[in-house]
Amino acid sequence: MRVLGVDPGLTRCGVGVVEGVAGRPLTMLGVGVVRTPADAELGQRLVAVEQGIEQWLDEHQPEFVAVERVFSQHNVRTVMGTAQASAVAMLCAARRGIPVALHTPSEVKAAVTGSGRADKAQVGAMVTRLLRLSAPPKPADAADALALAICHIWRAPAQNRLQQAVALHTASSKGRSA
Amino acid sequence: MRVLGVDPGLTRCGVGVVEGVAGRPLTMLGVGVVRTPADAELGQRLVAVEQGIEQWLDEHQPEFVAVERVFSQHNVRTVMGTAQASAVAMLCAARRGIPVALHTPSEVKAAVTGSGRADKAQVGAMVTRLLRLSAPPKPADAADALALAICHIWRAPAQNRLQQAVALHTASSKGRSA
Repeated sequence: MRVLGVDPGLTRCGVGVVEGVAGRPLTMLGVGVVRTPADAELGQRLVAVEQGIEQWLDEHQPEFVAVERVFSQHNVRTVMGTAQASAVAMLCAARRGIPVALHTPSEVKAAVTGSGRADKAQVGAMVTRLLRLSAPPKPADAADALALAICHIWRAPAQNRLQQAVALHTASSKGRSA
Repeated sequence: MRVLGVDPGLTRCGVGVVEGVAGRPLTMLGVGVVRTPADAELGQRLVAVEQGIEQWLDEHQPEFVAVERVFSQHNVRTVMGTAQASAVAMLCAARRGIPVALHTPSEVKAAVTGSGRADKAQVGAMVTRLLRLSAPPKPADAADALALAICHIWRAPAQNRLQQAVALHTASSKGRSA
């Protein structure tokens, strides 16, 4: 199973691709950050996020996209940008018929560290170990994207297959958007 | 000046096209609602919003898109969907090099009724009068979209022209996204 994890953000949108199945060693296929300039128009920033996500989808052809679930209770100043960037990531995936899964930050932390309250350093350390990397991915958004992908691979594989079948059916019956 | 107003929402996304210039009678070219089923996957709903907005852009070729500015202080349950739908509308416009303007609900109410605290009925009544309609557009989301377009036409025409020049320049130098 190949999963693109997306830690959404307008300034830095973390992306990471992990391949594997639950119970077997995982492989990192790519990690990075889609950045957009803070002084650009909001519409242009969303276009830049779209172009970045499209490139990652083209290059890695993931079977699933796992996006961090955004809560409106979080930091009020940044939550809108996060929600908007996550909408673009979900849109890009759904347009291609790739199922999108949302995982909360505490689900992701619990999946990779065993604790839903783990800090960034702990998540980074576990991502490094689980993917057998030589150093924690930087910035933290990139590590979080990998953690999202790992979380998705480890949660409910049977459910994933069902969701994939539904998404492909929906996409093929509706056709792709412009 | 032709403006597409968008009152963003996942369940009902109001859209309305108004043509005119400040100080002259305005003309409504179209009004409607893009709806997506509440029981569909979030990604699929965003794709449906995109398809709906694209159709309105294709049909009416607006020079500006005016979107309601979403505040995270609003209803916590619906604000995420609103932010996500607004991101899709902004993305569709920016991809075509159409400048996007955000107006707050109170700016819109003040523009069309004279009071930033006007209620829905008052906004509907003024939209009906200003566009010389026989009845207020239903649902309220559709009337709000027209009010957004009117607000945009009446606010700072010189600023609009500058923004349009910048957006077109940015779009042509970056090329269109996939």
